[in-house]
Amino acid sequence: MVLVSPRNPLNIGAAARAMANFGFRRLAVVAPYAPSWREARSAVGAPELLASAAETGTLAEAVAGCTLVAGTGTVTRRKPEQPVVPLPGLGPLVERELIRGGRVALVFGSEKHGLTRDDLSYCHLLVEIPTDSRQPSMNLGQAVAVCLYELASRVFPPSMGAAETAAEDERTAGAPAAPSRALDRLAGVVEEAMIAAGYSPATMQAANRHDLRLLLRRLAPTERDTRRILGLFRRILWRLKRVKKER
Amino acid sequence: MVLVSPRNPLNIGAAARAMANFGFRRLAVVAPYAPSWREARSAVGAPELLASAAETGTLAEAVAGCTLVAGTGTVTRRKPEQPVVPLPGLGPLVERELIRGGRVALVFGSEKHGLTRDDLSYCHLLVEIPTDSRQPSMNLGQAVAVCLYELASRVFPPSMGAAETAAEDERTAGAPAAPSRALDRLAGVVEEAMIAAGYSPATMQAANRHDLRLLLRRLAPTERDTRRILGLFRRILWRLKRVKKER
Repeated sequence: MVLVSPRNPLNIGAAARAMANFGFRRLAVVAPYAPSWREARSAVGAPELLASAAETGTLAEAVAGCTLVAGTGTVTRRKPEQPVVPLPGLGPLVERELIRGGRVALVFGSEKHGLTRDDLSYCHLLVEIPTDSRQPSMNLGQAVAVCLYELASRVFPPSMGAAETAAEDERTAGAPAAPSRALDRLAGVVEEAMIAAGYSPATMQAANRHDLRLLLRRLAPTERDTRRILGLFRRILWRLKRVKKER
Repeated sequence: MVLVSPRNPLNIGAAARAMANFGFRRLAVVAPYAPSWREARSAVGAPELLASAAETGTLAEAVAGCTLVAGTGTVTRRKPEQPVVPLPGLGPLVERELIRGGRVALVFGSEKHGLTRDDLSYCHLLVEIPTDSRQPSMNLGQAVAVCLYELASRVFPPSMGAAETAAEDERTAGAPAAPSRALDRLAGVVEEAMIAAGYSPATMQAANRHDLRLLLRRLAPTERDTRRILGLFRRILWRLKRVKKER
């Protein structure tokens, strides 16, 4: 589970408590506001979980090893750029990914504004908790609890926290999608190629980078396919640079 | 929804926020610790809900009009005296009750110790959130959010807060169980009769009263049947008192 830029350490603690309640172990905190977040007293029964949590500077680092990244939020305020899955439908997707040997991350934004458009470009899909349209904004700790309850009770009943076991035991149903870091490496080379080819004017580079991230996550290539595409773009890039020099 | 003896107003506010998120309206607070609970700042988007909440001295008053009272808690610490329903199984029971025209209450105990054995004797069933056995104790606001999410997404998808409508429109499938206050009235007369009959020695009266409450909720008679049984016991009581006088 990943928390992006959480402001209130009490909410980080509440999220950790809910993780312990539903048998989840791995927490990553991205760019937290309060340096003392590991001491949150609200992490009842989960101090070790907070102590062993990863802290990263960017969301890209936090989800680098994940093959399915699910962002959370409401659709009311923005038009989403990736598929929207109502929370009750997330279980089957997570289960399939784990059975394939993949790794799944569930990402929550800050209390203030949720996940940004940039955060969401690292996500394969957007999970929506079905709330009343008149009051859709949930407390962070409560949103975490609801999502983990859903996953724990639908994906691995009746024993909790069996994610790792399932992932290691049943690598049968096809290869998993490539992890996020492999897609980012590919995106970097593709972007270089785009610039080298003059496809991407300077003013459009940030927008194109964003769209490219989304595209790769929609495609969800396997690791092997990602390497193939990477090889192709490296070759293209090498050619483009040579052409430039020859001119 | 009913909160029994909540200690921290922040948790009452968090519960109210979750109610607003999932389209629930009616809150009752039983014997709260802090007199200023209605001002809880954590009730984001739900100040009216807190303002219009009922405050009662006892759980019996709070659930007087309800035909199905579901207590929440974990089974780990005590042997329950009523049926235990895992949270994912609560939806169909609530739906059936509402279709019959009944009224449902979901009851949460205090942060310290949850619902007492006495509280639970007013409940028809005990709802258990399936948590990790190593860390079953949930934060009150998070437990409320998880339960209301389950009910909102299973009982009335996709429109929220349709409880009242459903209850009023489809009074077809048999009569609902009698409300809690009718069972309490009956229990009072039955107890009088037990005492008058010399069935219940003074040392056993509290225990018998407790068991009687549980028995009536297991039987779940309709209002009409409750009136019938009440009539019978009133008659018995009248006879018993006459016999005493005649001796």
